[in-house]
Amino acid sequence: MAGGPEIERLVLLLAKLPGLGPRSARRVALFLLKRRAQVLEPLAAAMADAAAKVRPCSRCGNLDTVDPCQLCRDDRRDGAILCVVADVADLWAMERSGAFLGRYHVLGGVLSALDGVRPDDLAIGRLVDRVGAEGISEVVLALNATVDGQTTAHYVAERLEPTGVRVSRLAHGVPVGGELDYLDEGTLAAALKARR
Amino acid sequence: MAGGPEIERLVLLLAKLPGLGPRSARRVALFLLKRRAQVLEPLAAAMADAAAKVRPCSRCGNLDTVDPCQLCRDDRRDGAILCVVADVADLWAMERSGAFLGRYHVLGGVLSALDGVRPDDLAIGRLVDRVGAEGISEVVLALNATVDGQTTAHYVAERLEPTGVRVSRLAHGVPVGGELDYLDEGTLAAALKARR
Repeated sequence: MAGGPEIERLVLLLAKLPGLGPRSARRVALFLLKRRAQVLEPLAAAMADAAAKVRPCSRCGNLDTVDPCQLCRDDRRDGAILCVVADVADLWAMERSGAFLGRYHVLGGVLSALDGVRPDDLAIGRLVDRVGAEGISEVVLALNATVDGQTTAHYVAERLEPTGVRVSRLAHGVPVGGELDYLDEGTLAAALKARR
Repeated sequence: MAGGPEIERLVLLLAKLPGLGPRSARRVALFLLKRRAQVLEPLAAAMADAAAKVRPCSRCGNLDTVDPCQLCRDDRRDGAILCVVADVADLWAMERSGAFLGRYHVLGGVLSALDGVRPDDLAIGRLVDRVGAEGISEVVLALNATVDGQTTAHYVAERLEPTGVRVSRLAHGVPVGGELDYLDEGTLAAALKARR
C-alpha cells in the first residue's frame, strides 16, 4: 500500500472495528492522518489510557476504571434491587434512561444454541450467589425481547426460584414516539393486554 | 456516563470519525474494551506510531513515513508522467489499480465555490513549478467526474498551458462489471462516443 507499513497496519486494524470494512477503514485512516493534533493523537492517547485503566467490575461485570465500579460503590443507589442485563451496552442504555436507581448484574451475553453459549458461559451462578449474599429483594430482568433474550430470562428466573427473590421483567408495549402502524402484532397485542 | 471519564472521552473521540455517530461510537468503544489485547492495545499503538511518523511528502503531497515519499523515491517509476489527484485517497485508489507507473501530485482538494476552496488553497502553483523543474512530459488529470472535479481539471489545465506540457484526463465510460441499465445517460453517451 502506498504510504508504508505503518499506514497499512492502521487500516488493517481499523477494518476490524464493527461497522467498518476495508473501504471505510481507509477513509477513517486518512481522516485521522490529516487531523493529527486534533483527533489522531488524542484518540491514540484515549485508547492507551482506556486499555491501561478500564477493567470489568468483579462484582457486577460493568466496565470501569475502579473495581468495584462506581455504580456498585454508589451508596445512593438501592442495593436491594438488581437489574440483570446481557451486556454492558444494555447497562449504558438503562443508565441513559435515568429510570433505574438500583445496582446491576451483567451476564456477559445470552444463551444461544446457535452460537454455542451455555449457562456456564454466563455470570448466572454469580448472580444467584449475589442474591443470597447481598440480601437482594428484587431482580429486574432487562433482557432483549428476542428469542435468545427471553430464553435466557426464563432460565435465569428458574435458577433464581430457590432463592425466593422477586423476579420482574421489563414491560412490553408501544415504544414512546412509536407509530402503531409500524409495530408488529405481537407488540400491539402485548400493549393492549397491559393497558392501564 | 457509567464507566467514568476515560470511557466517555473514548466514545466522544470515536464519534468524531467519519461514518460513526454517538451510537456506533459506543458500540466501537465497547468492542475495543472487550478486546484489549487483540484490538485496543495494537490499535492504540498503531495510531501513536502513525501520528509520530507519517507526514505529507514535501514533493507530491502523498502521506508517508519518509520524505520524499517512497513513490517519489522509486526509480522504477516514470518521472516524466505526473498523475494529478485531489486527495491521497484517490492516489491510493490509482495505486490499487496498478495501472499507473508514473509519479503523483496531490492537490489537497478541489475548487469549490460552496466550500470556499480557491486556487491558492490547492497545490496548483507547486504543480506548475514541478512540471518545469522535473521535465514532465505528460500530466494526467485524475479528478472526480463531478462538477467541482471537472471545474478543477479545467482550471489546472489552463494553468499548465504556458508550460506546453501534454495534459490528458481519465476516460469516461462504462465501469468494468457495470450494468448498462443502471448507468446514467451522460456516461453511456460518453462511452459510445469513445467506442473502440
